[in-house]
Amino acid sequence: MERRKILVQLDTDAQPSVFDSVVAVDSHVDQLFRHANITPENVVGLVHGAIFTRGSEELHYTALFLGGSDVVAAERVFEVVKKTFFGPMRVSVMFDPNGANTTAAAAVLAAGKHVPLAGATATVLAATGPVGQRAVRLLAREGATVRVASRTLDRAQAVVDAVRSRVPDAKLQAIATSDDDSTAASLDGASVVIAAGAAGKTLVTEPVLKAASALRVAIDLNAVPPAGIMGVGVMDKAKSLGSLTVYGAIGVGGTKMKIHKQAIRSLFEANNRLLDAEELYEIGRGV
Amino acid sequence: MERRKILVQLDTDAQPSVFDSVVAVDSHVDQLFRHANITPENVVGLVHGAIFTRGSEELHYTALFLGGSDVVAAERVFEVVKKTFFGPMRVSVMFDPNGANTTAAAAVLAAGKHVPLAGATATVLAATGPVGQRAVRLLAREGATVRVASRTLDRAQAVVDAVRSRVPDAKLQAIATSDDDSTAASLDGASVVIAAGAAGKTLVTEPVLKAASALRVAIDLNAVPPAGIMGVGVMDKAKSLGSLTVYGAIGVGGTKMKIHKQAIRSLFEANNRLLDAEELYEIGRGV
Amino acid sequence: MERRKILVQLDTDAQPSVFDSVVAVDSHVDQLFRHANITPENVVGLVHGAIFTRGSEELHYTALFLGGSDVVAAERVFEVVKKTFFGPMRVSVMFDPNGANTTAAAAVLAAGKHVPLAGATATVLAATGPVGQRAVRLLAREGATVRVASRTLDRAQAVVDAVRSRVPDAKLQAIATSDDDSTAASLDGASVVIAAGAAGKTLVTEPVLKAASALRVAIDLNAVPPAGIMGVGVMDKAKSLGSLTVYGAIGVGGTKMKIHKQAIRSLFEANNRLLDAEELYEIGRGV
Repeated sequence: MERRKILVQLDTDAQPSVFDSVVAVDSHVDQLFRHANITPENVVGLVHGAIFTRGSEELHYTALFLGGSDVVAAERVFEVVKKTFFGPMRVSVMFDPNGANTTAAAAVLAAGKHVPLAGATATVLAATGPVGQRAVRLLAREGATVRVASRTLDRAQAVVDAVRSRVPDAKLQAIATSDDDSTAASLDGASVVIAAGAAGKTLVTEPVLKAASALRVAIDLNAVPPAGIMGVGVMDKAKSLGSLTVYGAIGVGGTKMKIHKQAIRSLFEANNRLLDAEELYEIGRGV
Repeated sequence: MERRKILVQLDTDAQPSVFDSVVAVDSHVDQLFRHANITPENVVGLVHGAIFTRGSEELHYTALFLGGSDVVAAERVFEVVKKTFFGPMRVSVMFDPNGANTTAAAAVLAAGKHVPLAGATATVLAATGPVGQRAVRLLAREGATVRVASRTLDRAQAVVDAVRSRVPDAKLQAIATSDDDSTAASLDGASVVIAAGAAGKTLVTEPVLKAASALRVAIDLNAVPPAGIMGVGVMDKAKSLGSLTVYGAIGVGGTKMKIHKQAIRSLFEANNRLLDAEELYEIGRGV
Repeated sequence: MERRKILVQLDTDAQPSVFDSVVAVDSHVDQLFRHANITPENVVGLVHGAIFTRGSEELHYTALFLGGSDVVAAERVFEVVKKTFFGPMRVSVMFDPNGANTTAAAAVLAAGKHVPLAGATATVLAATGPVGQRAVRLLAREGATVRVASRTLDRAQAVVDAVRSRVPDAKLQAIATSDDDSTAASLDGASVVIAAGAAGKTLVTEPVLKAASALRVAIDLNAVPPAGIMGVGVMDKAKSLGSLTVYGAIGVGGTKMKIHKQAIRSLFEANNRLLDAEELYEIGRGV
């Protein structure tokens, strides 16, 4: 009998995500081991259980999914997971807390369908959140000049520094956006905008959007009214709005789901995959 | 590949019920997601995970089971679950905390095999507990006149009021039963009695049972000695006791289990089933 | 449809063991119900759920696995599980907290391949731990004279008393080993030594090992350097070291894993198996 594909779902929340579990089942995982309340301390024994049971030639039938609504907490767990592996004693891992990686990947892929990203200027609003930071990383790797916008310049600069430590040749610019004027300035000359703000917060008003004459694509990742970019509907998917193409949160959701499922399947092709934002973005090119 | 049937088991207890899980597996659920410590607060995200993953035409492959030993706590969760659904974004739910709904349905179905319930007089002893209340509801809907018995009249009246708010034309009578005389009075002229008391509490003594000359069927839902109705054995199933037909807790258990399994299977036929006492009773007619 | 094989994994730790779960899946269990934080108090309802769902002729399709890193805590749970069964209302149980039973069984089986255990003298170092105590039991049942070594004589004697209460005709001798001289004395004339000490603690130095001229087989169950028996490597499996045959922790791990898997499979052959150290040792003879 062939080995069954086991996904160990490690969630930092008090209840394991039903969303992530359903997607795992629909990605043809055979057995799902669901763990809640995962911490850097308790994860080590669970990783040992994953790497010390099956033979080395069968380790690719076991994989980890790392999730939870607190992305920073999950990042700390991910670091420990990677350190617990050694030599060939490792299994593949998908890292997608709160869907931040798959969402950022889907958003940047959507933008890239309408604007050549290399050399483009792209503005990421609310860039300090998990999705925003990852969108900045992916845009920068594609060669875009990225304006990293936040309400305070300090926090924007911190993201610039963090991304530059991973992408040394990134073209990044920290920018503070606290009102219509500063937001308009952040969009001046940009062909791409991605709004990654919290639910219920409007980042771009209609006059600001209209004034941003260089914009070609606008992506609003906020799923809860009011819109993050006024005029963009949550269901919009490559919708034309004058010279602009717009996407709402559910509009990029289809691609996000395809990336998630393809990524889960790819975990079981080898025992050394580490699927973070960049790898999920690469998977997204093929779906 | 056809979608796998996922049952999300939501349990208000600190450990998810093994009983409910085994029945789910034996009802051909493919994947069971088991959650403990469910509250009105933490259930919302889990329901979102159930309704926002699969497409609307596939939502009937996902369903919820709501259980736990504290029926009142589970009722609060059920209310929140129903409010979290909207439009077509919903999945089917079976509500059977502590087996209260399937037990009450099986008991009333057993009674109805021997006495036409419409127009009958039925006494429910210890009617204020979860099973008792549901038996009252089901008997009232069948057109029986139901004597709602409890040790205090106030508590009996509260059940009468609660049932009447759901079944406006219910024929209900609150009655206090604190000793043999008052219990005998509650059974005078009744053709059905269902004893739904706590374990180890005798509600009907032998002299009282013998004096109840109109009785045709007596159902004792107490599984732990001493019997709730003296003379009824826990295994009795349609056993003749003079002019009386009697059932014990395990005697109705077979029907209860059939209802439970058929109900789980029916969850996956549509995405809008809400299986509370009445719906489980209807399912019981067909098993 | 044939009943699916359900294993209820009861773990005393705060997270259920991934190791035990992977082995269960690889032993062809169909459905795994994983429970953490198991106590003597909360286990009763779970056992009831296991024995009161399926019919008596189908109870062998449900089984329990009892694990956790705290062997003493798991033993208390095991006692309650056994008391909760009654008459035919029972399911099979494998008891292997922290792998102590399968490890001890594999170690004694390895020793028996090289030395006839009946009549042999065997020394168990660090015999007061869970693995050590079980190795003493299994060696004693095979008819070996067992030297039960610990740093203090009192603790060694307590193990002697505990084993004798289970194996009345056991030939046991308590011995204190606090340094090279006392360890050498414990090995004098012994043909078997099993070192069951904690990680990172050397119990037998090279001079002591060389001086033990009667030794034929030395088994070191410590997996973390430094070795428990100097000169024995963790991967050694029936390796010749002069006149000695040696095994390290991973060297006995293959047999341990075979016992574990065969034991899980055997749980589903009947509903009355209780697989403790002795039964797992018997299973080990056949793998």
